[in-house]
Amino acid sequence: MNARKPQILKGFRDYTTDSMLLRQHVISIFRSVFECHGYEPIDTPALEYMEILSGKAGENEKLMYHFQDQGDREVGLRYDLTVPLARFVAMHQNDIVVPFKRYHIAPVWRAEKPQRGRFREFWQCDADIVGSSSMLADAESISVLVDALLAVNLTSAVVSINHRKLLQALAELAGVPKDQAAVLFRAIDKLGKIGPTGVRSEMMAAGTSEVSATTVLDLVTAQGSPDELLDEADRKLRGVEGGSAAVLELRDLISYVEQLGVPGNAWKVDLSLARGIDYYTGPVYEAIVEEPKIGSVAGAGRYDGLVGTFLGREIPATGMSLGFERILDVIREFDLLSVPQSVADVFIPVFPETLPSTSQIARELRQQGVKTDQSILTNRSLGDQLKYAGRRGIPLAVIVGSAELAQGNASIKDLKTGDQDDVALAVLGTAVRGMIERQRAHGLVQSRERQDG
Amino acid sequence: MNARKPQILKGFRDYTTDSMLLRQHVISIFRSVFECHGYEPIDTPALEYMEILSGKAGENEKLMYHFQDQGDREVGLRYDLTVPLARFVAMHQNDIVVPFKRYHIAPVWRAEKPQRGRFREFWQCDADIVGSSSMLADAESISVLVDALLAVNLTSAVVSINHRKLLQALAELAGVPKDQAAVLFRAIDKLGKIGPTGVRSEMMAAGTSEVSATTVLDLVTAQGSPDELLDEADRKLRGVEGGSAAVLELRDLISYVEQLGVPGNAWKVDLSLARGIDYYTGPVYEAIVEEPKIGSVAGAGRYDGLVGTFLGREIPATGMSLGFERILDVIREFDLLSVPQSVADVFIPVFPETLPSTSQIARELRQQGVKTDQSILTNRSLGDQLKYAGRRGIPLAVIVGSAELAQGNASIKDLKTGDQDDVALAVLGTAVRGMIERQRAHGLVQSRERQDG
Repeated sequence: MNARKPQILKGFRDYTTDSMLLRQHVISIFRSVFECHGYEPIDTPALEYMEILSGKAGENEKLMYHFQDQGDREVGLRYDLTVPLARFVAMHQNDIVVPFKRYHIAPVWRAEKPQRGRFREFWQCDADIVGSSSMLADAESISVLVDALLAVNLTSAVVSINHRKLLQALAELAGVPKDQAAVLFRAIDKLGKIGPTGVRSEMMAAGTSEVSATTVLDLVTAQGSPDELLDEADRKLRGVEGGSAAVLELRDLISYVEQLGVPGNAWKVDLSLARGIDYYTGPVYEAIVEEPKIGSVAGAGRYDGLVGTFLGREIPATGMSLGFERILDVIREFDLLSVPQSVADVFIPVFPETLPSTSQIARELRQQGVKTDQSILTNRSLGDQLKYAGRRGIPLAVIVGSAELAQGNASIKDLKTGDQDDVALAVLGTAVRGMIERQRAHGLVQSRERQDG
Repeated sequence: MNARKPQILKGFRDYTTDSMLLRQHVISIFRSVFECHGYEPIDTPALEYMEILSGKAGENEKLMYHFQDQGDREVGLRYDLTVPLARFVAMHQNDIVVPFKRYHIAPVWRAEKPQRGRFREFWQCDADIVGSSSMLADAESISVLVDALLAVNLTSAVVSINHRKLLQALAELAGVPKDQAAVLFRAIDKLGKIGPTGVRSEMMAAGTSEVSATTVLDLVTAQGSPDELLDEADRKLRGVEGGSAAVLELRDLISYVEQLGVPGNAWKVDLSLARGIDYYTGPVYEAIVEEPKIGSVAGAGRYDGLVGTFLGREIPATGMSLGFERILDVIREFDLLSVPQSVADVFIPVFPETLPSTSQIARELRQQGVKTDQSILTNRSLGDQLKYAGRRGIPLAVIVGSAELAQGNASIKDLKTGDQDDVALAVLGTAVRGMIERQRAHGLVQSRERQDG
């Protein structure tokens, strides 16, 4: 046979079983959080007309995978889940009920320079509300975001809250021309990384006057309670276009966040938060873990201009995007969740003379919810079969040879410790489920201890 | 705003909430069946090097979406999950434990002529065993296949079993040259559709002699028990290259199928089953529903040549592919599963004066597993809010205004019947869960009645 070299594209990954078990577990947690808040699942095609995808991604646009298909159509792989949402809403406007709360967990593709933790195929995990201008919708986004992070034990994440129009008013106040505001935002966004001095230099390098730079820095570095910060912003921005309205919206938002019962230590107002994406038009949020030094794990914001693109009218929308791949890395690094090491709970070795009986036992265990791998290693010794199960990480074996069968027994073997016990076949299911639950509880304790330690 | 026409590529679909609720439900059922048998999940990239994908798909090859990426690499979207499995096994050969039992549920892409029920993006649902030549592996495939179909109430499916090498021996016996055998197989495969006379004409049109056509037809139309059919095949094919070996393997397979406890009415030997895909090398299976006239819902077979392609050595493999999209259509058409009509179980309208209290109630309901959508329709009347919930198909509303709150009560309203009852807040969760369970049981009964009716 002529072997071609097996290879995978740079920036793309296989998900092996270990990796899939965690991914599936976390997806099911996020799905459950979204559905528990009434968000509805949708999915859209991987391929879209380029005309649909283009013109909305800003800098990301050149990262799009695109080509001519067999029918000479210009098509591209989706690079996010937001543009497809806009197209979806336009095409299904008569079927969906607004406010439309949808979530979407799916892969997207970007031809980025591959680097550690950054891939060309990665999953996004978005929950958005389309068709409501109410700050209660934004507050719900924040509440769901906090719940989702808590559900994967990311307990120290804090959601920073700011408002795009407040930043714009600030730029206006500082005398920065509108077309240069983006430079200002980018500089401010680096406050955590390069400090006030660094931000000041960047602003001045971009042409901001020293006085203006000071005005901006004074406000974005101000410390205090949410109310104090907003009072300060209100004083400074009164009379500046959009400033007071932005402060009012933030007051509204914060009041709703409190009324929804979001814990006070899970959010804060941070007037330096800019967030990069161009299409935000209102409140913006970012979930950041300071301790340990993890950084951003989710982002969110209101974008009233995008969803209506295909309908020629403004449709308000707000939503959030969990940094799915980043969160998986963090869960792995800090051992935040206990995930089984194997799919199967139980392995049943086979012997020619007892195969019909063990098959029946396997069937009964499965009916009781026990994931049961019956061996296909015919004509291999018991030792070989158990070695195979051990290498697969299966925790328990249920051994039923002719001798056990004659006595109406099965032997349960712990494949980690080697401990072995006989139980009557009549109570096998109960015994096995008990052992699995004890092992799971133990795994959870170990995982907690590793976290604390 | 300049509206661009929202459109979706021909042959591609959005999955709306209704559709997603069913898809997610069925995926979770199939996942559960696979995992209950110890199959492990993996996933692979949507994009692969063309060099990896090409040369294995036969006729399907021209249907591949392919292009040059930004780095001038020739890349393609995967058109099945089997070729990626071969690449995966080659690249992870040191990490996986053989026999390797994996399942993979994911979209694939083919630029086919779109037609009813056939799409350019569709999901496949495969479970395979790599690294075992034992017929017990094939028997397990059949067993899992039967369990998967039963789990979605496709109770009348029957798995037809044949052997690729038995067909080849038959072609040899009939004097059909090897390079024309594929034509013969395709003719035989149509037996159910065009009958023996039609098959005879097709065979003779392709150059088979009348005597040979009769020999072939006699065997593939023979009726009888599995043992009788195999005895007949054995008599006819004794001395023909590969014939006896194929019969022996089928006897082995059938014995294992019986020992695994697969119900006798769920499978049969059908010597006319050919299956189109070129890479099969051993037993082939197809699950067919005759009554109602649904046809094929899953296919399977042994393909010992493909997985080793990238390693330059033969690696035995056998597996099965559920016709995921077809099965979804059938479930929908024959109402085989009861799926909730909305994500949320409960809707809570909001009033400015009770928002903190209803938020707390929502949180408690969610903690009890009740999917709870708290309204974001601030400043809208109760009637408007309930109408919104009704249009979304949410079955229950929990109404807590100031009056209810003062009495420590909540009002539960059935949004279908309009019935309304007050319950104490202390027992709200219990009451709501009871109503949801009753409605679900009722839905299941209705679904069963529709099936029977």
